[in-house]
Amino acid sequence: MSDVLERVSRLCRDAKDASAAIARADTATKDAALKAMAAGLRANAALLLDANARDLEAARAKGTSGAMLDRLALDTARIEAMASGLDEVRALADPVGAMDGLRRRPNGLLVGRMRIPLGVVAMIYEARPNVTADAAGLTLKSGNAVILRGGSEAFHSNAAIAGVLRAALKATGLPEAVVSVVDTPDRAAVDALLTMDTTVDLVIPRGGAGLVRSVMEKSRIPVLAHAEGVCHVFVDDGADVAMATDIAINAKVQRPGVCNAMETLLVHAAIAPAFLPVVGARLRDSGVEVRGCDRTRAFLPDATPATLDDWAREYLDLILAVRVVDSLDEAMAHIRTYGSRHTEAIVTRDHGNAMRFVREVDSSLVLVNASTRFNDGNQLGLGAEIGISTTKVHAFGAMGLEELTTRKFVAFGDGQIRA
Amino acid sequence: MSDVLERVSRLCRDAKDASAAIARADTATKDAALKAMAAGLRANAALLLDANARDLEAARAKGTSGAMLDRLALDTARIEAMASGLDEVRALADPVGAMDGLRRRPNGLLVGRMRIPLGVVAMIYEARPNVTADAAGLTLKSGNAVILRGGSEAFHSNAAIAGVLRAALKATGLPEAVVSVVDTPDRAAVDALLTMDTTVDLVIPRGGAGLVRSVMEKSRIPVLAHAEGVCHVFVDDGADVAMATDIAINAKVQRPGVCNAMETLLVHAAIAPAFLPVVGARLRDSGVEVRGCDRTRAFLPDATPATLDDWAREYLDLILAVRVVDSLDEAMAHIRTYGSRHTEAIVTRDHGNAMRFVREVDSSLVLVNASTRFNDGNQLGLGAEIGISTTKVHAFGAMGLEELTTRKFVAFGDGQIRA
Repeated sequence: MSDVLERVSRLCRDAKDASAAIARADTATKDAALKAMAAGLRANAALLLDANARDLEAARAKGTSGAMLDRLALDTARIEAMASGLDEVRALADPVGAMDGLRRRPNGLLVGRMRIPLGVVAMIYEARPNVTADAAGLTLKSGNAVILRGGSEAFHSNAAIAGVLRAALKATGLPEAVVSVVDTPDRAAVDALLTMDTTVDLVIPRGGAGLVRSVMEKSRIPVLAHAEGVCHVFVDDGADVAMATDIAINAKVQRPGVCNAMETLLVHAAIAPAFLPVVGARLRDSGVEVRGCDRTRAFLPDATPATLDDWAREYLDLILAVRVVDSLDEAMAHIRTYGSRHTEAIVTRDHGNAMRFVREVDSSLVLVNASTRFNDGNQLGLGAEIGISTTKVHAFGAMGLEELTTRKFVAFGDGQIRA
Repeated sequence: MSDVLERVSRLCRDAKDASAAIARADTATKDAALKAMAAGLRANAALLLDANARDLEAARAKGTSGAMLDRLALDTARIEAMASGLDEVRALADPVGAMDGLRRRPNGLLVGRMRIPLGVVAMIYEARPNVTADAAGLTLKSGNAVILRGGSEAFHSNAAIAGVLRAALKATGLPEAVVSVVDTPDRAAVDALLTMDTTVDLVIPRGGAGLVRSVMEKSRIPVLAHAEGVCHVFVDDGADVAMATDIAINAKVQRPGVCNAMETLLVHAAIAPAFLPVVGARLRDSGVEVRGCDRTRAFLPDATPATLDDWAREYLDLILAVRVVDSLDEAMAHIRTYGSRHTEAIVTRDHGNAMRFVREVDSSLVLVNASTRFNDGNQLGLGAEIGISTTKVHAFGAMGLEELTTRKFVAFGDGQIRA
């Protein structure tokens, strides 16, 4: 066995052992650990900034771009944000141990389901070091051990954050291996990790399309992909033009670089003459480049002609594809063909069309008369999120504490045997 | 692209197209299809028996064993059982479309979750041709398209059953591709199928450990493994000896060849002198070979000495490993080390021990004072089951209709945008 494989294998076994302890831990113990972790981050800010400076220096030496450097950088405000994120997770209800659906079977056996941690969760992500603390907090509160593998560019920052979190676990009397980081930037470590299906219960990849696809292809462990969002807004015939415009602008402009931003606007042909000039002016004022179909360009002559390629693009930028369609069915067919099952919204006054859109569109969040930007665990009421799953099994969409757990069956009898 | 890859790819695309239609279908349409499918099986019994005869002949020519031939064989009673299985599924409640947890957010957005089909489910299984009809019925009622790949030994039987089911779908006005079988016994077809992650949402392998492991290693699609059951019964200090004996005998003897049969009996040292001679006599009368630890053999001198290897064995036969332990903790440690997270039971009078066992044992079903044989969808109240998942994500344990669905978020607004 190679050295890397051996190290990763030991890390996973230690995490599995620790997962039994954290699964049993009561809420008070887990909350004490979260409190100590937040305090540790605040008390060790200087240490974290030092480690981060090493990552930043290496990144600058490699000629890394400004946006990337900004995502990588820590400062005291961002460290405080990590700490208060842990405080917020501490305030959430503990999902573990809830029992539901207890029903008496005809033979007297009382059968129900108990919510339990998944066990060991591996998280593979890029860039932002705050994910290290966020993921550790959510997995701990939900009773799981976590194995963290951040981007190599944040290696020292992530190691320093995890070191502080592990010291807090130890001080609380919990095994340090409840939170581990893969302690080598060697890429072979990820490949090795993805074969550990006897010790790791779930892998969550968060990052670019290349990372997510590579994890899906290599993993023997169940994967909840956090893949791209090619999100649509469909403006129906008869929609409130002012509302449709506000929603479209918000969905595209409020934060264009994230997965729940709108990438394609679909417009019913009957409302296009009233709507497109209005939204077009607002998009232009907001600096958005429009790539339109021929019918769109009849109303927005400045728009770039859209190619087939544009319909499937996740721009993550101030660029918007716009297409005129003849019906709700044509809009839904477009979404089925080019969408990524992430977030879709309809703006309509028609109840039947709203309900058909909600029922038939196969996306993790389907909205009526609201911006796609609401696909976020906090906004949807989960309290906090570890990400947005585009995999349909287990958890489709925003994942909070409950989505980091599963349920087992329990049965209470008084001697029942099977006939 | 190879011929097999091309064929499988087309099959999966057709299934995905059909999945949109079956996801939209109302309950009455799905029930009409199930009724036509059951009628079709009854009306075409002669055709099915002919196809099955070809499989049996080929199997005999290959020198297949009696037990295997019996699993492969169809007769009119087994065909009627398939048909009435479809009738039972028809009588179950349709899980699709249920909306739960609708709550108003502070900004007025009404957020909840809607239960939806998974999409396309691939089922890879061995031997028994009835799985073809059972799986088709459950996936159809839960709004999914299914791709079936049975064992090559049942190739003609499965093709004939699927042919009848597809004719019934067509007669009901649903796409035939709601139910498809991989139309070649070529093993490369399974490898190709497991790469189709853009069209297939879930793979369920049911069969021997080799099949399940191979699917887990190769699949890029989420897998819910139906793996082995190394199931335990722990007889606690102070347990009712008669109850413990009945449960142990039932768990081992009632149907030894299935995954929820007990494979290891753990006995508290304090009750061993009272319990082991009683259960030992009953096991001997039932023809069960006991493989015991040294302390077991002090009470059951005829027992074969158990080796380390015995603790992890799924015998699926009239063989039982027996170990004496000093405490509940030692019993749970044994289960954690050697168990397969399938089914575990405690026999006890002690409430605290019962609750600790239920809380701390990490298995898909944990029972108090009842036989492990109850790990079955029908017995637990799911109505019918497609199998028992040993994967913790999505559905841990018995999988019925609801476990073949997922939930998406829905949000109803009146113009909400994100600040």
